[in-house]
Amino acid sequence: MANITKRSEDYSRWYQDVIQAAELAENSPVRGCMVIRPNGYAIWENIQATLDAKFKELGHVNAYFPLLIPKSFLAKEAEHVEGFAKECAIVTHHRLKQVVVDGKVTVVPDPDSKLEEEYVIRPTSETVIWDQYRKWIQSYRDLPILINQWANVMRWELRTRMFLRTTEFLWQEGHTAHATAEEGRQETLQMLEVYRWFAEEILAMPVITGAKTANERFAGAVETYSIEALMQDNKALQAGTSHDLGQNFAKAFDVKFQDKEGKVEHVWATSWGMSTRIIGALIMVHSDDDGLVLPPRIAGTKAVIVPIWKSDQEMAEVCAAADRIAAQLRPVVGPVHVDKRDNMRPGWKYAEWEAKGVPLRLELGPRDLAGQQVMMAARHDRRKQAAGFDVLAEAVGAELERIQQDLFDRALKRREENTHVVEAWDDFVDLFANRGGGFAHGHWCGDGACEKRIQDETKVTIRNLPFGRDETPGQCVKCGRPSVGRVVFAQAY
Amino acid sequence: MANITKRSEDYSRWYQDVIQAAELAENSPVRGCMVIRPNGYAIWENIQATLDAKFKELGHVNAYFPLLIPKSFLAKEAEHVEGFAKECAIVTHHRLKQVVVDGKVTVVPDPDSKLEEEYVIRPTSETVIWDQYRKWIQSYRDLPILINQWANVMRWELRTRMFLRTTEFLWQEGHTAHATAEEGRQETLQMLEVYRWFAEEILAMPVITGAKTANERFAGAVETYSIEALMQDNKALQAGTSHDLGQNFAKAFDVKFQDKEGKVEHVWATSWGMSTRIIGALIMVHSDDDGLVLPPRIAGTKAVIVPIWKSDQEMAEVCAAADRIAAQLRPVVGPVHVDKRDNMRPGWKYAEWEAKGVPLRLELGPRDLAGQQVMMAARHDRRKQAAGFDVLAEAVGAELERIQQDLFDRALKRREENTHVVEAWDDFVDLFANRGGGFAHGHWCGDGACEKRIQDETKVTIRNLPFGRDETPGQCVKCGRPSVGRVVFAQAY
Repeated sequence: MANITKRSEDYSRWYQDVIQAAELAENSPVRGCMVIRPNGYAIWENIQATLDAKFKELGHVNAYFPLLIPKSFLAKEAEHVEGFAKECAIVTHHRLKQVVVDGKVTVVPDPDSKLEEEYVIRPTSETVIWDQYRKWIQSYRDLPILINQWANVMRWELRTRMFLRTTEFLWQEGHTAHATAEEGRQETLQMLEVYRWFAEEILAMPVITGAKTANERFAGAVETYSIEALMQDNKALQAGTSHDLGQNFAKAFDVKFQDKEGKVEHVWATSWGMSTRIIGALIMVHSDDDGLVLPPRIAGTKAVIVPIWKSDQEMAEVCAAADRIAAQLRPVVGPVHVDKRDNMRPGWKYAEWEAKGVPLRLELGPRDLAGQQVMMAARHDRRKQAAGFDVLAEAVGAELERIQQDLFDRALKRREENTHVVEAWDDFVDLFANRGGGFAHGHWCGDGACEKRIQDETKVTIRNLPFGRDETPGQCVKCGRPSVGRVVFAQAY
Repeated sequence: MANITKRSEDYSRWYQDVIQAAELAENSPVRGCMVIRPNGYAIWENIQATLDAKFKELGHVNAYFPLLIPKSFLAKEAEHVEGFAKECAIVTHHRLKQVVVDGKVTVVPDPDSKLEEEYVIRPTSETVIWDQYRKWIQSYRDLPILINQWANVMRWELRTRMFLRTTEFLWQEGHTAHATAEEGRQETLQMLEVYRWFAEEILAMPVITGAKTANERFAGAVETYSIEALMQDNKALQAGTSHDLGQNFAKAFDVKFQDKEGKVEHVWATSWGMSTRIIGALIMVHSDDDGLVLPPRIAGTKAVIVPIWKSDQEMAEVCAAADRIAAQLRPVVGPVHVDKRDNMRPGWKYAEWEAKGVPLRLELGPRDLAGQQVMMAARHDRRKQAAGFDVLAEAVGAELERIQQDLFDRALKRREENTHVVEAWDDFVDLFANRGGGFAHGHWCGDGACEKRIQDETKVTIRNLPFGRDETPGQCVKCGRPSVGRVVFAQAY
């Protein structure tokens, strides 16, 4: 198994090593695209299942729109084309042709198959979806439309990093249409709250919810809200966004409806998305120098049973007992794996399952069997305790709950320890240059140019204007002009 | 609501009308690509859930590989490039640029963003997956690999038709790697059996399983097996395929392993897929002139309750009762919808739910409520019967089971009535030209050129060499040369 670089030595290398050791993903021969291996995809499947159930509970349905977008569509919303034109994969031909180059047979795009209008692989689907919504919406009776799509999208990123920033990524994108501005706003905030709930309750990842600044808004949005989490290297990561699109896309695609009073108006829109990027955050928030750490509620395998034996006779007995225990546990706690490989020592198995982030290990040797108990070892804090066969399901369930809560508490404590209130510019610069950074609550004048200068000088950005922020007036940390409240600054992924 | 053309008038138009009336899908502005609307996507979600659970039960796991394939990869397997080069979307640039053309601002691919090597949007993923498997496989201990992928793929089809043939479609593609030819063969046949089970038991669609001829094999396969269903217009539809790839892809991508004896050998491969095309088959096998008919096991909504009232007082009572009944039924039979719209008459609601293919309607008026019963009406045969509140869950469950079985029996009967044994060429030609076609069991010499002539003259193809086929020797229906057994012919989608 691969050695894992320590976080203190090289955080970025550690991240790659954890992904490799846990077999979550790897680079592919396609520029900036990764292969999501079964262990990584299992996490995504759990994310999908949990979010999808929640979306449906709130009245949303799924649909599927085309991968390709006519390039002219992108251009219809001015800010949108500005935001996405620089990083999109463009389809120009529809046939390959065999040719001989330097005596070797190869294939090239057939010039006769050049498309009249080029297509762009969707970087996001607002344009192609709103073009369709025009055909579906005439009256207030057709509203709201509450549609979500699970899809792959592509943005031609220059610097890529597995899960965090890849050319192709998987996500869900919700696209809703409403009869009033207020309803659209409520939907936007409701879905942000779903992301907060998901991050905190399922991924055990504390997040700050709030509005992005105008500079950081989604291309075409009236307001963008985000959830922001703090990683172990004290950089922030935007882990989900929800956009109030106002009437911008309805106007660009001419989508109008007749309200109850017979008045014709443009429709109000929202969109919201969470992507495979969240897996990168999940890895970075909880994992340690021995590999992946996963909160039980999102782990594919909740517990692994490692039977221990010296003789064939013992092997038969402990393996049979392990299978019985696993069968008892599964209906109560979810997937449980029994590692019966006979070409590997228990210690090696422990290390492997630790690297793969299984939250709980159950060790079962002949002496345990005689005593009708197993030894439970938690992945994240190594706590070991015996649990009798007669109370095993309850004990395992309780330990998994403890692990889930402890991971959240630990991450929250780390965030609090690395959250600062800053007043003076010197202090601000010093915090990020010399004192480890983190989240900084500071005043900002509200001017995008000033925000930009802060970023240029320190690589620090405004993550968001947190809900319930301190609105005591003050002076901008950078320029000293009046500020109506504090925003949260950080260096970010 | 849209009128539905009768099957007898224009079958192809009827098919489009059913899709429109049930709001399953519609054309998009992207050439040959459809939008799968929520009602259609709900069917796909049920297909995914059922197949995915079965794949996992058989030991498969899911993963995700890149959408884009370097064009040189396609060229590595000679037959493969031949099979797919003519119909693929090619990505050549990665940036749009704003330019002024005829005084108007527009966007064009930025010439400076031309890619060194073009990419093809995956028409299928064997090449990119086997390139990765090379890195994962060294020893027999790494085998088997049993991976499935849920993905979108793209083939630049000239003539498209919703669900049946679209430029982009959704599918699952299984890609497995094995240590022996026999194990690969067993996997190929096992997955074909999964498709048969799924088509017959879940979709109520009888299918013929068998091997394709060499001409019809997947590009790069040693053997391709298919399931073939008969539509109501007597055309056949290939609804799923499973390929024994032998060592072809392992050789093309140099994937070798060391076996238990230390011998180094190429790996054996399979691939197998089912796509959104199956929804087209599902529509065409069961539906009628009033719209969609769905077997209960794949229907998103199993039953719809239509409350009937004349006064506000009655409305309150029957709607409350309908909600109570729905809540009782859901845990037993699955999703049940209550249609409480107050701006539409019951008769219109009946027609709408019939068009949308809900298998069972429950009518509940004040008199029914007084009698503590509902009237059940089956979608496919209009059978109506009363069912008392006290036995409702059992009665609805039993009726849904009857519908499921009856749809299969009806489709099987239709297939049997349209299956013929043919001996003479004249009879063969007459069957397809004048007597309505269908499935024809006839002798074939085994020569691909002869098969091609049959197709050119009659548009009839060999669907497959059915398992358990009649192997009494005979003479080829076309050329009279010796034949070792009968194959099944049909005109096909």
